[in-house]
Amino acid sequence: MAISLTSPISLLPVKGIRIATAADEIRYQTRDDVVLFELCKNAQTAVVFTKNQFCAAPVIVSRQNLNVSQPRYLLVNSGNANAGLGVQGLADAKTSCATLANECECSEEEVLPFSTGVIGTRMPVDKMMRKIPSMLENLQESAWLNAAEAIMTTDTVSKGWSKQMDLDGHQVTITGIAKGSGMIRPDMATMLAFVATDLGVDSIILKNMLTDAVDQSFHCITVDGDTSTNDACTLTATGQAGIHFDELSKQAKAEFIEVLNTLFLSLAQSIIRDGEGITKYISIKVDQAKDEFMARAIAFTIAHSPLVKTAAFASDPNWGRILAAAGRAEVQGLEVNKLSLSINKLQVIAEGEVAIDYTEDKGSREMSKDEIEFCLQLGLGESSANVWTTDLSYDYVKINAEYRT
Amino acid sequence: MAISLTSPISLLPVKGIRIATAADEIRYQTRDDVVLFELCKNAQTAVVFTKNQFCAAPVIVSRQNLNVSQPRYLLVNSGNANAGLGVQGLADAKTSCATLANECECSEEEVLPFSTGVIGTRMPVDKMMRKIPSMLENLQESAWLNAAEAIMTTDTVSKGWSKQMDLDGHQVTITGIAKGSGMIRPDMATMLAFVATDLGVDSIILKNMLTDAVDQSFHCITVDGDTSTNDACTLTATGQAGIHFDELSKQAKAEFIEVLNTLFLSLAQSIIRDGEGITKYISIKVDQAKDEFMARAIAFTIAHSPLVKTAAFASDPNWGRILAAAGRAEVQGLEVNKLSLSINKLQVIAEGEVAIDYTEDKGSREMSKDEIEFCLQLGLGESSANVWTTDLSYDYVKINAEYRT
Repeated sequence: MAISLTSPISLLPVKGIRIATAADEIRYQTRDDVVLFELCKNAQTAVVFTKNQFCAAPVIVSRQNLNVSQPRYLLVNSGNANAGLGVQGLADAKTSCATLANECECSEEEVLPFSTGVIGTRMPVDKMMRKIPSMLENLQESAWLNAAEAIMTTDTVSKGWSKQMDLDGHQVTITGIAKGSGMIRPDMATMLAFVATDLGVDSIILKNMLTDAVDQSFHCITVDGDTSTNDACTLTATGQAGIHFDELSKQAKAEFIEVLNTLFLSLAQSIIRDGEGITKYISIKVDQAKDEFMARAIAFTIAHSPLVKTAAFASDPNWGRILAAAGRAEVQGLEVNKLSLSINKLQVIAEGEVAIDYTEDKGSREMSKDEIEFCLQLGLGESSANVWTTDLSYDYVKINAEYRT
Repeated sequence: MAISLTSPISLLPVKGIRIATAADEIRYQTRDDVVLFELCKNAQTAVVFTKNQFCAAPVIVSRQNLNVSQPRYLLVNSGNANAGLGVQGLADAKTSCATLANECECSEEEVLPFSTGVIGTRMPVDKMMRKIPSMLENLQESAWLNAAEAIMTTDTVSKGWSKQMDLDGHQVTITGIAKGSGMIRPDMATMLAFVATDLGVDSIILKNMLTDAVDQSFHCITVDGDTSTNDACTLTATGQAGIHFDELSKQAKAEFIEVLNTLFLSLAQSIIRDGEGITKYISIKVDQAKDEFMARAIAFTIAHSPLVKTAAFASDPNWGRILAAAGRAEVQGLEVNKLSLSINKLQVIAEGEVAIDYTEDKGSREMSKDEIEFCLQLGLGESSANVWTTDLSYDYVKINAEYRT
């Protein structure tokens, strides 16, 4: 059960983006599983891909195509990751691009393919391609909600976020959708996110905006520490709002960046709130670190600790496990006598000793809440980091043990 | 249920080592929970401690004492880790050393304390100390089995290994015991190992022997990636066999080292075979790596992957998860088209493609065995690494979620 998360009721269309979805029965028999995004001419798109060295065929092809030209189409399917299939997988990904390109008179390189689902099973390209003509006929601006549903795999709710803002008198919209429920989902399937705005943004600035936003959002979440062969996140700027980022006032620029970052963080946190087998939504804040590297390393080591995660599942205020995880992070110079820890607002450790007012009962009360924040103050400097994660429940094991049975 | 592991039936005494155990009811009410090792005069002892920066009081005190002099006594308790207790914990650890030293006329620094169990609860030093006089009276050479049982926490079987060998006409014995069932056990409790031989060995050589043996054994196992604040492993050489390592022939030296390494590996693998919630004993071999760092990094990334571990629990030959884990290891230069993978003797991937003869049925058959070996050949060089781990089962979650309830 997702924690305080429901599917979006509406998502705003973005001028210059048209969308169609279709049911190709790649894996799911009763729902749409393919999405086609059409991006208007001159739209700029930046993409962040997984760093996994064994990335899937669509990631390889998308990277290559993006080097050649700006994309006009994003072709996404759920149910099959087209991963682990060697030369055949690459050929299938390219065929899907070429077939689409042929239908809509663009070049093969102007199509970026994205796949998520089971690996090691050949992609049914023919199935995928048979509805391309009708999808091209049915493209519409208002299909973001359908798209959010069609890219789901084991997500229990669809994920999207949208906002319209007034920037120096111009209406600018930004909308994004994401899927994901574990950093690597069943069989390498994974998180995907597609975000678009009708603001005009130059490609280099767009790439920087995307990188910064991802650093503060998708790069700060983890369910199980496993990253995927298929992760990708796109940011498209269509320029159809009649205003360009460069022309904005300083204040409007800042507002846009803030909304963009909020959107990314919201999508990233949605993935955690819908994390596999989640019963607790856990925020980890590491503060007073020497530098950001130290703060992040410690936050992630805590977030990945199976013992911290099982304690959270049990509502057990087992703060020793949090300290033990922090202590094994690959950083130097920690000092236990400078360390403080709180769970939500409850002080647990103050400068290396159990806080005077702390009791196990108080600790249990905080740990039994749906949403838990661990705040670790290292007393060493001024850097901080935030990471969001899930607990480790019976259902996590069940979902991942039984996915293919 | 431990996988192919039962408690040892007998362990050989080591000349120069006397042992006593007692029931001090620190946590367990119906069994011995304190062990006293007396090491003969001139015995040399080397110790490897946890690298966790938030190490427990006994680790801090043992390290300090070892800097001052060679130990005459090892004082071990289970049930309380004496960790996370700040200044009080240090004082308690020192008090236990001083009290013992007072009873047996050695210096406080000649006692090394070791603790394993619940953290954050004050060590009942008075309880621990009350039976010291009778323990000193009851010291005997043949109590290794009792010691192996007294240091257990949630281990389901006790762990020991012992061998007598003929080295250039001299009878030399080596015996060791260990406890542990997760790299970090409930509440920071953890693995401890105590090994002794009656061979004479100089302290520097002894330290190197220990470091090498640990590198190939305890540093190659993981249950959950969590290391502990209390981990320690000792190696004592009493010199009572009437022969010194330096005097041995080249062949006898090699034999001793081999037996020593076998003992360490056996104890380490025992910990995995008794790993928390284990249903599958998993060996991971990474071969043909550029260097050992690469091989180890990949092997551990696979071993820590919750998705690989849940797949093993489900007997699911989900090789995509193994590849995905390898691909996210923090190493550079992997090439998917050079990669081969086998599960036990079954070839799954050959040079980046699914092996021609591979079927899911064959894969399932191998994965359903109690003992599974993943062998990953990278095709990049000649280095290799072995790591041993467990699957991730409902019982792992249960044990760690319910430990304190």
